[in-house]
Amino acid sequence: MNAPERGFPDEEYRARLRRAQSAMVEAGLDALLVTTEADVRYFTGFLTRFWESPTRPWFIVVPAVGLPIAVIPSIGAPLMGRTWLHDVRSWRAPDAEDDGVSLLGEALREVAGPAGIVGTPMGPETHLRMPLGDYARLAERIAPMRLRSDAGLVQALRRVKSDREIAKIHHACAIADRAFAHVPEIAGPGVPLSTVARRFQALCLEEGADWVPYLACPCDAGGYADVISPADDRPLAHGDVLMLDTGLVHDGHFCDFDRNFAIGHATPATRDAHRRLIEAVDAAMTLARPGARACDLFHAMDAIVTGGAGGSDTGRLGHGLGTQLTEGPSLVPGDTTRLEPGMVLTLEPGIEVSRGRILVHEENIVIRETGAEFLSTPAAPGIVVLGAAG
Amino acid sequence: MNAPERGFPDEEYRARLRRAQSAMVEAGLDALLVTTEADVRYFTGFLTRFWESPTRPWFIVVPAVGLPIAVIPSIGAPLMGRTWLHDVRSWRAPDAEDDGVSLLGEALREVAGPAGIVGTPMGPETHLRMPLGDYARLAERIAPMRLRSDAGLVQALRRVKSDREIAKIHHACAIADRAFAHVPEIAGPGVPLSTVARRFQALCLEEGADWVPYLACPCDAGGYADVISPADDRPLAHGDVLMLDTGLVHDGHFCDFDRNFAIGHATPATRDAHRRLIEAVDAAMTLARPGARACDLFHAMDAIVTGGAGGSDTGRLGHGLGTQLTEGPSLVPGDTTRLEPGMVLTLEPGIEVSRGRILVHEENIVIRETGAEFLSTPAAPGIVVLGAAG
Repeated sequence: MNAPERGFPDEEYRARLRRAQSAMVEAGLDALLVTTEADVRYFTGFLTRFWESPTRPWFIVVPAVGLPIAVIPSIGAPLMGRTWLHDVRSWRAPDAEDDGVSLLGEALREVAGPAGIVGTPMGPETHLRMPLGDYARLAERIAPMRLRSDAGLVQALRRVKSDREIAKIHHACAIADRAFAHVPEIAGPGVPLSTVARRFQALCLEEGADWVPYLACPCDAGGYADVISPADDRPLAHGDVLMLDTGLVHDGHFCDFDRNFAIGHATPATRDAHRRLIEAVDAAMTLARPGARACDLFHAMDAIVTGGAGGSDTGRLGHGLGTQLTEGPSLVPGDTTRLEPGMVLTLEPGIEVSRGRILVHEENIVIRETGAEFLSTPAAPGIVVLGAAG
Repeated sequence: MNAPERGFPDEEYRARLRRAQSAMVEAGLDALLVTTEADVRYFTGFLTRFWESPTRPWFIVVPAVGLPIAVIPSIGAPLMGRTWLHDVRSWRAPDAEDDGVSLLGEALREVAGPAGIVGTPMGPETHLRMPLGDYARLAERIAPMRLRSDAGLVQALRRVKSDREIAKIHHACAIADRAFAHVPEIAGPGVPLSTVARRFQALCLEEGADWVPYLACPCDAGGYADVISPADDRPLAHGDVLMLDTGLVHDGHFCDFDRNFAIGHATPATRDAHRRLIEAVDAAMTLARPGARACDLFHAMDAIVTGGAGGSDTGRLGHGLGTQLTEGPSLVPGDTTRLEPGMVLTLEPGIEVSRGRILVHEENIVIRETGAEFLSTPAAPGIVVLGAAG
């Protein structure tokens, strides 16, 4: 599979802006303010790993009419200057006296008017990536303008992906598919878990990942205690179950799925648990189509993995996926979001094998007009057993 | 160099807590609330890559007297249960109705009393990692308790590293040193930049990095336009200058330094620029000792790289380093922080070679009682030239 061309044509961003502006009119917003990596990228295409540095705030102002304005640290101005944006304003950050607040206030007043209403994400699964003190100063400075919740507007826009976005996520999944296929060559009894983690990340890079922002690799006898542990230096032992769960990135788009491996041999309980996880994924796939609700997929899987207990401590059985490792909707009992064509989801059922020991399986799918398609190559019901590594 | 043992003994966390609580008393705070990866880890040792998922909020409550309380999503409870904390409270997140707010409110009231004062980071280089709407709900729920700025208390604590922390950062630096030494084998004229980026990350892993959260690799003729660009697929060309700037992690601790490479050959202008960057680092090293101010190091370097113009668009000439890629203090004219033994800093001068073309060099150092020591192995004044890669 050839890599999709890097970046997007301007038309992609124009379409996003049109949708945003039509939703803003409906919501009574004169401007949007976004501050996080995924939201900034959504409106601009600004792609950098520099978000790893929490020092500097970044602001994009989306007016109800007209083009977005970037109000950003000067260190990012050349890169932002290569996006489709025309209006890039910058200051030398960090500046403890005024870290962009006055510049941002001016931009907001310009586009939203002296008594305008500015929406910013404030709801579940969001945060504001700027100092709280500066946010208070901004609110004061721009009054009588008001800052209020965008009521989930930006998340709703991002939830439905274009074909171009889906192609990028699909490509990331294909890279992970190939990396997982090589795991028998890098892991087996006696290999330290941290070595497996390093080698697996190297495989992801070799197969074409630009970078590997996420890897969890819990491993324990007959199942693992949690799904977010990093690797330690303990060697893999016969009877362990190893999970590799990766969020790798290509051109700024994530995959997020895992594979389980039995070390040396698999007990009947392990084999059975793995088979039921695959059944749960298949049950969700049968329902996954436009009109079904996020909670419907949850219940289909929960019926199989807990007998319908209503969930477990991992908290959800799947989620949205795109330029974030995880995003909405959430496959939980309380999420009644209707699925739409273009939504990309993970199906991530977990099952308790014995007290405090679980297995979790994950696949990535896209909702199409008439059903759903796998973006990851779905795993077979039989768990892969790893012998001596090459 | 052997890797330092993973994690810290409980004594490390007890010492942090003692310092925090003594500062809290002085600041009139009954409790601290922290929400970000580095702050949560500082008080608990909780280490996971799951912060890549922005979905769930995580809360640590530090009382003025007694042990910290974790109020966290149940998906993290087993891992948090393996830290030194005794009191771990959890809920099944995400929960759009109440994503930990009531549980957090109870914990705060318990430790800070009905009219207590709770500090949380609100100043420069901080943010609150929870939904703004939930923060407003929390404030309402706990009134008449008050949430106010911690006045930089947590940042001040984290700024001074223990010998155990310094050993971990030093180890991360040594891994990067070894990876940089292999660059001539993986990069040269004709190799696509994105391939160089992949191979370099693989080198970092091979040399012992747990993961590689940051890599910038700008590359252009005679110098680059910015320092935060990700790699594209363009092949390296004769006359290019390539910068590899990596923040790799070992056991949760970062290094952050770069190396420059001339592709095929180096012009006299490139050689001279590189030599002056090394001079600038040396000038800062001469001053770097307890009592010197962050701004003093800035001016020492700025005199050499801009002739004393007072800075450039990259915004600062170095910064703190630890469990974040970048943290305070900032080497800028306005930062008068006094250096103390145990502070780990980057020295990161940049120089304009021609209009819009820069070179930036970076080393990592630690402040000791009588001066400073390099944690990265300092680069020689002569820029490394890359011929055909192996």
